[in-house]
Amino acid sequence: VGVLVNDGLVMMADTRTNAGVDNVSSYRKLRVINTVPGRVMVIASAGSLSVTQGAMTRLMDALLLGEDGVETLDTAPTMFRAATLVGQALAASKEAIDTTVAVASETKVATGASLLFGGCIAGRKPRLFLIYGSGNFIECQSDTPFLQIGEHKYGKPILDRAITYDTQLFDALKIGLISMDSTIQSNLGVGLPIDIAAIARDTQVTAVNARISAGDPYFRSLRESWSGALRAAHIAIPRPPYGAGA
Amino acid sequence: VGVLVNDGLVMMADTRTNAGVDNVSSYRKLRVINTVPGRVMVIASAGSLSVTQGAMTRLMDALLLGEDGVETLDTAPTMFRAATLVGQALAASKEAIDTTVAVASETKVATGASLLFGGCIAGRKPRLFLIYGSGNFIECQSDTPFLQIGEHKYGKPILDRAITYDTQLFDALKIGLISMDSTIQSNLGVGLPIDIAAIARDTQVTAVNARISAGDPYFRSLRESWSGALRAAHIAIPRPPYGAGA
Repeated sequence: VGVLVNDGLVMMADTRTNAGVDNVSSYRKLRVINTVPGRVMVIASAGSLSVTQGAMTRLMDALLLGEDGVETLDTAPTMFRAATLVGQALAASKEAIDTTVAVASETKVATGASLLFGGCIAGRKPRLFLIYGSGNFIECQSDTPFLQIGEHKYGKPILDRAITYDTQLFDALKIGLISMDSTIQSNLGVGLPIDIAAIARDTQVTAVNARISAGDPYFRSLRESWSGALRAAHIAIPRPPYGAGA
Repeated sequence: VGVLVNDGLVMMADTRTNAGVDNVSSYRKLRVINTVPGRVMVIASAGSLSVTQGAMTRLMDALLLGEDGVETLDTAPTMFRAATLVGQALAASKEAIDTTVAVASETKVATGASLLFGGCIAGRKPRLFLIYGSGNFIECQSDTPFLQIGEHKYGKPILDRAITYDTQLFDALKIGLISMDSTIQSNLGVGLPIDIAAIARDTQVTAVNARISAGDPYFRSLRESWSGALRAAHIAIPRPPYGAGA
């Protein structure tokens, strides 16, 4: 999930990947790119790991090679131009794998993938994009100040209810964690650790760049508080007056 | 959603159907069948309306015709046998439509559909089944005492957290309504009115058989209480201590 509020930008991703329930692994899906001063960018991925890893490698290799005349995430003048690069890398990775698979096998391989791409370039506001497998993208706006990829439905109700553009940065981080916890409770395909990043407005560094693991005391307490509050909330609502329940 | 607790059975369904967001209608998706004393059955449907209406018509026509030697929902000796009839009706409806479509058109038509089927026959416990489009089915058990069809993800977290086999009947109804409300808040494809039915254990009549419409005062108050409690709950949780948030 990525949340873009007036105060800044929050992004987070779990680390669980699976090729079926009998083949579950932990892979980092959130990457912070802060190789040059004055800009910080964050990429979260969902979908085919081979496609998203290929896209990340293309982007990072371009940074390492630093070839003349080749625009990279370090040199793109705007977040929009940077998002275009990310879209191109994702589409190129997907196409390369689709082509390889078509040549090598009759097996159908799922190469669906998407990315959240957010960040801030000095002198400009933070921006957040959802990049589709074909390389096209949409930008987050203040009417609905969050974007989700991957397993998004379980965690959407709390975001719909609690997040507005005026939510403070660390409240957005907190609500994002509640949303992730709801998904973790209901779906085995999402699990701890969670990687989190937050960028305050008018800065180009991460205010938070951390990993929340199973033993994390704050996350455990958030979980327990939320669970307890939900229990209290539904107990406090009177029983329905319909039929014999009156 | 259907909930099977020690106290009885609760089933509910919204009434929204759509053929794209530009073609939304209201159709009853919950049917109570209580044509003979000593048994009551409830069917909730999701997916292709043409398939589920066809299945319902087959089942109801069999009741009306009452042909000798043809088992119907009124004569099946057990809920398992009744569920088998429902599965056969659903599979037959789906197959008839798939065949018609294949002959008539090159257009791909979605005929995915599923049913929840619950009820009680005198002298036996209530039972609840999820019936797939192919006619096979699974039965609800006490370890996970609920089943969902259709748009299930938004409303699953609260069911996962709040429902156990020991939940009382009208509490199960209440929690089901909270779950429906979560889905309604996040997905345009689900909307009021909601039809609800509840059957207390050791009875073969509906304790509740009602429709909740937009102006319903209890549902409006449940909605407001739940929304307010969630807001209070996330506000009460302290901000995350990571990075500069400490």
